[in-house]
Amino acid sequence: MRGFAQAEYEARLAQAQKLMAAHDLSAMLLTTEAEIRYFTGFLTRFWESPSRAWYLVIPASGKPIAVIPSIGAALMAQTWVDDIRTWRAPDPADDGISLLSDTLNEIAGIGRIGIPSGPETHLRTPQSDWGWIKSGTFGQFVPDNGITARLRAVKSGAEIAKIETACTIAGRAFGRVPEIAGQGRALSAVFRDFQRLLLEEGADWVPYLAGGADRDGYGDVISPAADRPLEQGDVLMLDTGAVFDGYFCDYDRNFAIGPASPIARDAHARLIDAVNAAADIARPGTTAADLFHAMDKVVTGGAGGSDAGRLGHGLGMQLTEGMSLIAADQTVLAEGMVLTLEPGIDTVDGRIMVHEENIVITQDGCRFISPRAGPEMTVIG
Amino acid sequence: MRGFAQAEYEARLAQAQKLMAAHDLSAMLLTTEAEIRYFTGFLTRFWESPSRAWYLVIPASGKPIAVIPSIGAALMAQTWVDDIRTWRAPDPADDGISLLSDTLNEIAGIGRIGIPSGPETHLRTPQSDWGWIKSGTFGQFVPDNGITARLRAVKSGAEIAKIETACTIAGRAFGRVPEIAGQGRALSAVFRDFQRLLLEEGADWVPYLAGGADRDGYGDVISPAADRPLEQGDVLMLDTGAVFDGYFCDYDRNFAIGPASPIARDAHARLIDAVNAAADIARPGTTAADLFHAMDKVVTGGAGGSDAGRLGHGLGMQLTEGMSLIAADQTVLAEGMVLTLEPGIDTVDGRIMVHEENIVITQDGCRFISPRAGPEMTVIG
Repeated sequence: MRGFAQAEYEARLAQAQKLMAAHDLSAMLLTTEAEIRYFTGFLTRFWESPSRAWYLVIPASGKPIAVIPSIGAALMAQTWVDDIRTWRAPDPADDGISLLSDTLNEIAGIGRIGIPSGPETHLRTPQSDWGWIKSGTFGQFVPDNGITARLRAVKSGAEIAKIETACTIAGRAFGRVPEIAGQGRALSAVFRDFQRLLLEEGADWVPYLAGGADRDGYGDVISPAADRPLEQGDVLMLDTGAVFDGYFCDYDRNFAIGPASPIARDAHARLIDAVNAAADIARPGTTAADLFHAMDKVVTGGAGGSDAGRLGHGLGMQLTEGMSLIAADQTVLAEGMVLTLEPGIDTVDGRIMVHEENIVITQDGCRFISPRAGPEMTVIG
Repeated sequence: MRGFAQAEYEARLAQAQKLMAAHDLSAMLLTTEAEIRYFTGFLTRFWESPSRAWYLVIPASGKPIAVIPSIGAALMAQTWVDDIRTWRAPDPADDGISLLSDTLNEIAGIGRIGIPSGPETHLRTPQSDWGWIKSGTFGQFVPDNGITARLRAVKSGAEIAKIETACTIAGRAFGRVPEIAGQGRALSAVFRDFQRLLLEEGADWVPYLAGGADRDGYGDVISPAADRPLEQGDVLMLDTGAVFDGYFCDYDRNFAIGPASPIARDAHARLIDAVNAAADIARPGTTAADLFHAMDKVVTGGAGGSDAGRLGHGLGMQLTEGMSLIAADQTVLAEGMVLTLEPGIDTVDGRIMVHEENIVITQDGCRFISPRAGPEMTVIG
């Protein structure tokens, strides 16, 4: 099924409004893709264009109000939102500013208006326009106390099903990597072909692909692919965020090009041990920090982290969202949270290996939604 | 060739610093992908993750200073930037805030620090962190007077070559659409396959694909594809932003599924007339508004626009950037500007057709960098 039943949006809104009341918010103002989609179902790749601002106002009671460019009116009208106010953007004289201020004044009066202000949020509005919006709005803008982030952290069954579908699609594509990779093939060609495999296997689009390949590891996991051909003895890693119906998977696989060296084999086995150590304790009540320490003990002996910064994170409407698996994150796991376990390990000469799986927290433990990898890497060629 | 010669970055920096001096800026602070890449060459899809902030400080003289998460240090070290200051992000206690403030205080003292504030910009930093950054920084944050946007608007020869490569790749993929589209095929399958064709033809990745299909036009150009099968009499439109080495093409093609109706044929021919009317006058000295009026006269008889909001826009490191072809945009065209001509026309029953081409402004006119379409649509099946 595409999209969600209206009851899903009604539940999200009701929860938000309950928290808004607790924090004395007369409205919330949302400006970014995931937040607006969370409350409306408005799904489009048009956010790739930075030229137009989009606004959603969540009132203290009643349905969300969209204040958006007219180019988006037809698509927004297909969602459950009824009150859609539009202007012809871009309009340098008034790019939705007065329409938004009027709406906020109508909805919130002189009340407090929450805006997402915590980790991973930003205000997707030019600073100059923001100044005008503030001066035209009677209410006071205040942090939203992480309301939207908190709601998004716990996934419904329907959301989990979409993430799991994305994981299954990627699993089929990973299974076909031997078709596209091998000695002498350029990493850049492998990247291109792997995106093709993801699409063939059912991904709607592929917003993220990273990886690397070098002897016994790779230097970096965020670089675009180089044209260097794969060589015997390389470890090839592909890490993808493929999307199904607006929800991401995010996991990787390592492949040995020719028989793996003892160093690479040991490293990979240790990464799997680390994942297992975290999965063994992942259940409601465990904290993000607990998962971090369980993995960090295996991969660094308990050094307290590495330059990657974290050993996993929440997952859902965005490639990464919500908790970070670090010592400082005391987020308590709850049923329905979806996250990645992503330990990394130093191998030799500054190179690293990383392994990543996706899990969902269940009533009394966790369940792998990526096809759980064993200690042995797949050998290609 | 991938990337740019260092001289390209030196020239960008020198131009920026000249404008900074004219506006009495002691530094500029950049937080978003395109701006940071423009001055460094830092190219990664890792921006898809919202979890880490990235900062670039442009001093009044000397090279840019990167203040970034340690996970990006290796990739940033491959650019021409030498001064790379890192922290292990995410760090809830201090997510680069003191490192950034210290850097700004060292570089700018109590001077004025420009931040992009105009159209299409945003501050990619949580509001709560921004408050801390401001309170820890001695200097005053002020609008950057559009310096980065102004520089980015005029492309170098090397930049134009990359955009043109992206256009050529898409042209080959559009040429293969008859392989993947036809009566009975679902639009969603066509979308998936068209992304695959773009990758096969050499796109690095495909951040944007939109389109539509219906009798004599389509209702919307920003929706994801539905599963409805194509029917005889449909007009199929595909509009892509495919990327080569960090630069976009952005154009579309319309296809007739079976022989086109007189309505669709006439509409398409009129869209081509509109593009021709704009191309005929596109040269240095012409304004964005002039191009708008030339096209608007053909497609609406001079009504002054439509709900799409504009009839084209600048193009380059982002799918859309810089000027808008609207009556209110008085941007004067200059040699090296790259833009799209994107007229739309109402057909019947609220449906529309849109045609888009990409051009570069030359010394005395313009040159099409998308393979210029003729008045007749390609007929499939």
